[in-house]
Amino acid sequence: MTERPEIYLTGDRPTGPLHLGHYVGSLQNRLELQQAHCEQFVMIADLQALTDNAGNPQKVRDSVLEVALDYLAVGLDPAGTTIFIQSLVPQLPELTLYLLNLVTWNRLKHNPTVKQEIQQKGYGESVPAGFMVYPVSQAADIAAFKATVVPVGEDQIPMIEQTNELVRAFNRTYQREVLVEAKALVPPKARLPGIDGKAKMSKSLNNAIYLSEEPDSLVKKVRSMYTDPGHLRVEDPGKVEGNPVFDYLDFFDPDRERLAAMKEHYSRGGLGDSVVKKHLIDVLEALLAPIRERRRYLAKDPAMIMQMLFEGSAVAAAAAAATLKEVRAAMHLDYT
Amino acid sequence: MTERPEIYLTGDRPTGPLHLGHYVGSLQNRLELQQAHCEQFVMIADLQALTDNAGNPQKVRDSVLEVALDYLAVGLDPAGTTIFIQSLVPQLPELTLYLLNLVTWNRLKHNPTVKQEIQQKGYGESVPAGFMVYPVSQAADIAAFKATVVPVGEDQIPMIEQTNELVRAFNRTYQREVLVEAKALVPPKARLPGIDGKAKMSKSLNNAIYLSEEPDSLVKKVRSMYTDPGHLRVEDPGKVEGNPVFDYLDFFDPDRERLAAMKEHYSRGGLGDSVVKKHLIDVLEALLAPIRERRRYLAKDPAMIMQMLFEGSAVAAAAAAATLKEVRAAMHLDYT
Repeated sequence: MTERPEIYLTGDRPTGPLHLGHYVGSLQNRLELQQAHCEQFVMIADLQALTDNAGNPQKVRDSVLEVALDYLAVGLDPAGTTIFIQSLVPQLPELTLYLLNLVTWNRLKHNPTVKQEIQQKGYGESVPAGFMVYPVSQAADIAAFKATVVPVGEDQIPMIEQTNELVRAFNRTYQREVLVEAKALVPPKARLPGIDGKAKMSKSLNNAIYLSEEPDSLVKKVRSMYTDPGHLRVEDPGKVEGNPVFDYLDFFDPDRERLAAMKEHYSRGGLGDSVVKKHLIDVLEALLAPIRERRRYLAKDPAMIMQMLFEGSAVAAAAAAATLKEVRAAMHLDYT
Repeated sequence: MTERPEIYLTGDRPTGPLHLGHYVGSLQNRLELQQAHCEQFVMIADLQALTDNAGNPQKVRDSVLEVALDYLAVGLDPAGTTIFIQSLVPQLPELTLYLLNLVTWNRLKHNPTVKQEIQQKGYGESVPAGFMVYPVSQAADIAAFKATVVPVGEDQIPMIEQTNELVRAFNRTYQREVLVEAKALVPPKARLPGIDGKAKMSKSLNNAIYLSEEPDSLVKKVRSMYTDPGHLRVEDPGKVEGNPVFDYLDFFDPDRERLAAMKEHYSRGGLGDSVVKKHLIDVLEALLAPIRERRRYLAKDPAMIMQMLFEGSAVAAAAAAATLKEVRAAMHLDYT
């Protein structure tokens, strides 16, 4: 077997600024890949955001810039990572349409991720067709870049399986090994709970701390955090497991020794929530202060940010065009 | 109301050479529009052909040239009519994806034309997703050129209704009058029966006379034609209605007076099928001989034909790009 270097693809839907959940779940991983000089595409998925935000395109538009600012502020570097806007790569809808011929309507209906999201969003019978075909659109995003590794959450694994089915169907139908299968890479523990203790930090659940969070609002949010509801008096023993304040410290506190001692103290009793929260505020502020500062500096020149996105999108479009050239040849559509 | 000149869009799926049914049903109409200097786009719908010919792309590929030869042979002129290849206009899949967000899955399922075709093709549960979304793809084809008139068969009227629903949904959702509705134009009597007497001439029914039919095979086909099964002896009275030989003469015989006399004679009795068929052969040969000759001449230089298609496709792509520019602006995707 020839060993080709992996190609990574990830992305975000631009529906608002990014938060600590994104940092833990994906941004950190991307920074590591960048540091390891891996080939990496990061997509701002504006078309995917429009599938269920068609009525609010300006929100999507504004969020493209917000997300790009977040990327750069945390340290993603266009010199090492191809950051691009989905809608600026016209090869993606083209490949989507080609792949739609290779999957049955019935199969799409039974995609577990789609089924679950239809339920969550309460679509019922009025689910938009664009939403139903988005696994195919996602497959096209992955296949167009010949991505071999897609870091995702566990709930997205069926999407990668769907992608690989389509990749195999394409190669089988057109009898050429053009598209390549991708592996799902699920980070071991990558889900940050919300400040309300709910399993997932999310903008729509209103339980998020943003990468651009201002210090005073950071203080307010951490102070309001859910802890151990049984920990009423300082001297009571407190629970560390399932306590989001400690979950956050687990993720972000670089001083592991002191953290272990704090946990022991909290479990034994005698350590107040307010002290632990004060510590978390310091830890988070140490992480966020430089990000916030860089973000503020970059935000002064939005035209420069957009220029960076255009350049990344041109690189991405060239990569996708190379794949589509092979795709069209396999489909006997290579007229020119 | 400002009166803008109509824009016509029609097309053919390249799955084989065109036959007399196409001539009667659409080519004649296009020639008239061309003569009247109407703005007209004629699409060779290779992507649509692939939706149910994914396993046989070379057939589609070869047919693109066959169809183009037929067009030019009957008199379509690239100077007056924009002839183009669907897959060379990348704006069409792009608009298709945008429109997919504006229609429910359920609505697509209940499109009468699609329902009927699913039954005809015996897809059952395994209907390809590409087939289910093709009304949206067709809507994109029409809307991208801002076509206002689409000449179609009666069975295609629901497709135009679906197109106009999407056009209205787009303009309403993005609050701009970007896309325009189209009218279906159903020619009064445009369906030529097959030589076997079946309602429709069609390649798949193996009952067609091709525009490129050679003289000897034309003779054979006409001689084998279904007539009045009750007309056993020459002296018997024969039926003219429902007799495809007379249907064909109705369409193609320019000498209406003589035709009326023949019908009268046939009805009265004393006119043999072989005599009428001999006459039909002469009439069809008069139509087909110059087409065949022009076709043979043009077929000598396929590269020139392809060049003509590339030029038409560039014109079509420019028209579609102008629409997509407005579309993207309405969707707040006009980054550049």
